[in-house]
Amino acid sequence: MSVTGPQGFRAAGVTAGLKPSGKPDVALVVNEGPRFEAAAVFTSNRCKAHPVVWSEQAAADGRVDAVVLNSGGANCFTGPEGFATVHFTAEHVADLLGTSAGDVVVCSTGLIGEVLDRARLSAGVAAAVTALSPEGGQAAAEAIMTTDTHAKQVLVERAGWSVGGMAKGAGMLAPALATMLVVLTTDAVAEQAALDAALRRAVRRTFDRIDSDGCMSTNDTVVLLASGASGEAPGQAELDAAVEEACLDLAMQLIGDAEGAKHEVTIEVVGAASEDDAITAGRAIARSNLLKCAIFGEDPNWGRVLAAVGTTDAVFDPAQIDVSINGVQVCRAGGPGEPRDLVRWEGRAVRFVVDLHAGDAAVTTWTTDLTTDYVIENSAYST
Amino acid sequence: MSVTGPQGFRAAGVTAGLKPSGKPDVALVVNEGPRFEAAAVFTSNRCKAHPVVWSEQAAADGRVDAVVLNSGGANCFTGPEGFATVHFTAEHVADLLGTSAGDVVVCSTGLIGEVLDRARLSAGVAAAVTALSPEGGQAAAEAIMTTDTHAKQVLVERAGWSVGGMAKGAGMLAPALATMLVVLTTDAVAEQAALDAALRRAVRRTFDRIDSDGCMSTNDTVVLLASGASGEAPGQAELDAAVEEACLDLAMQLIGDAEGAKHEVTIEVVGAASEDDAITAGRAIARSNLLKCAIFGEDPNWGRVLAAVGTTDAVFDPAQIDVSINGVQVCRAGGPGEPRDLVRWEGRAVRFVVDLHAGDAAVTTWTTDLTTDYVIENSAYST
Repeated sequence: MSVTGPQGFRAAGVTAGLKPSGKPDVALVVNEGPRFEAAAVFTSNRCKAHPVVWSEQAAADGRVDAVVLNSGGANCFTGPEGFATVHFTAEHVADLLGTSAGDVVVCSTGLIGEVLDRARLSAGVAAAVTALSPEGGQAAAEAIMTTDTHAKQVLVERAGWSVGGMAKGAGMLAPALATMLVVLTTDAVAEQAALDAALRRAVRRTFDRIDSDGCMSTNDTVVLLASGASGEAPGQAELDAAVEEACLDLAMQLIGDAEGAKHEVTIEVVGAASEDDAITAGRAIARSNLLKCAIFGEDPNWGRVLAAVGTTDAVFDPAQIDVSINGVQVCRAGGPGEPRDLVRWEGRAVRFVVDLHAGDAAVTTWTTDLTTDYVIENSAYST
Repeated sequence: MSVTGPQGFRAAGVTAGLKPSGKPDVALVVNEGPRFEAAAVFTSNRCKAHPVVWSEQAAADGRVDAVVLNSGGANCFTGPEGFATVHFTAEHVADLLGTSAGDVVVCSTGLIGEVLDRARLSAGVAAAVTALSPEGGQAAAEAIMTTDTHAKQVLVERAGWSVGGMAKGAGMLAPALATMLVVLTTDAVAEQAALDAALRRAVRRTFDRIDSDGCMSTNDTVVLLASGASGEAPGQAELDAAVEEACLDLAMQLIGDAEGAKHEVTIEVVGAASEDDAITAGRAIARSNLLKCAIFGEDPNWGRVLAAVGTTDAVFDPAQIDVSINGVQVCRAGGPGEPRDLVRWEGRAVRFVVDLHAGDAAVTTWTTDLTTDYVIENSAYST
């Protein structure tokens, strides 16, 4: 059910004292081989945290032996000392595992601009190496949580091989990427190029299409490790499908645990002239604070949808758009459709379908509502 | 102190019953001449409300004799019937005033997607014509309020001439334009091209630089009427300055009354490579929900500023940025500067200075914090 679901991986999660709460805060995932292909995708934010700068280089050659992750501090905008901490941590992990620092990916999450306690982190790394276990996935997933209310894990099983994963992220979710750390593992035999293609495709279709608050993090990392331990070598399409299934499952867990959210919102843009248009329109809708407040209040204010789409360059005629909310077509051809009172709000799931009547492309985007709890949680995050 | 401050204008505000609250909801501003030059700027949202579609045409020839405005309904996405209501209203005003419908600008604000009651609006128009007065500015300003807590007016006085104005808008403020209706009047003698240049310049430097929630309206209109009644003919620079002063004053009133806001935030981006870069960076900062929540909580979380700038294509080196909050330089050269505890929060005004160290351009953007009150107000706007 986690990164240790596939064969050939050990993991651990320990408490290093980086979090004031005293909860677990250092995780380690180790590929035991026999193969060590890997692929990774990082934040497109130009203000990258030190671990991202390091890990982009570490993953560039397509081999990753271990991923060390800490919560309790993002190690971002912490000056040269912060980068030295990343370097030191990678060397430390490599020494203890008998591998090369250049094959160690480092991930951090927590508050930006606070210097990490290197001594505590170092002791945590040593403890994590000692604690490594083929059943360590759960502990690792718990150790990367920040404002997450629960650990997020997945296991996609195929005949003889599988894809496992864990994710951290509960806010600041926006393309591309959502604020998150994701480690995926597979025991499939796969060339690096195949892994890279599968991961980029999956990220584009899942994590890049969730957007809780339009904010993009400095630390986002998704890394996929392949041990080859199953001896099974799926074709590209099989690999693509399994990796996408794992990513979609984790993405839905992220949206389902977004900070303060009361509703999970599915936005299907259909009838778009192109996939890009559908993505652009979906993202604009997902980022409308006014719409997100209306959803919190269970107010079927469909005008907010049209106002959001109207800010984009997607191909559409305002006099043609249809909008349905939870199956009720409240807007038809750019004007009022069924009475908005007919919309039923039941449970957390809300579904918008927006038909641009401009073509055949369709894309689903996922978001959450904007709630008083979100504001309260983020009004005192660093204090 | 209002649109009737300059000579040559009459105005009125009356109650037509469009608002369930029974408050005034129809306003009329009439230019009595002797001249009738005008300029106007409209929303760039591609989903334009019917009054905007009409008024763009009405103002295109540079002559506007009257502006009729209603609150209590945006008349947006209301189908062909909605456009017919605009046309009817312009004809009605023109008949009563003895002018041409093609010289009547129509503005509406309120809920999107609800059909306006044409009979009530018509009766309101008739009552407004009867009530027209050289002292009617205050009543007109009150009749265009929606969620505004007070009427917003300005009078900029020069030797022998002046610029007056009124504005409506308290949320959904974003470039370009803020959600708002603005009517400006002047008794200066000015050619239409001069008015147009002055208005576009002022809008670009004021209304386009306020952003309360990143949402852009379907109804935004700014119109400037010139009566020439003073006989004074200021030069372009004088006219520019007076119109900008009036617009800036109204823009600050809009930000000061933004829905649910607890802080007015000034974001000075300095050291930018270009004015466009400074605008882009300022806007990204102003739209960061996470930063806006932190300001609500008086949490000097400067990492949010860098994360926001990092999403833009502005020229900057993350290792060079400085950020100060209320005069305390909490981030120096992309890392921690003065202790964040030194930041003092006093009153509603908050000032960020962000130095990109990439050039000499500087732009100020204004925004507000994101508060629980904002969410509550907008969670039940249409119900």
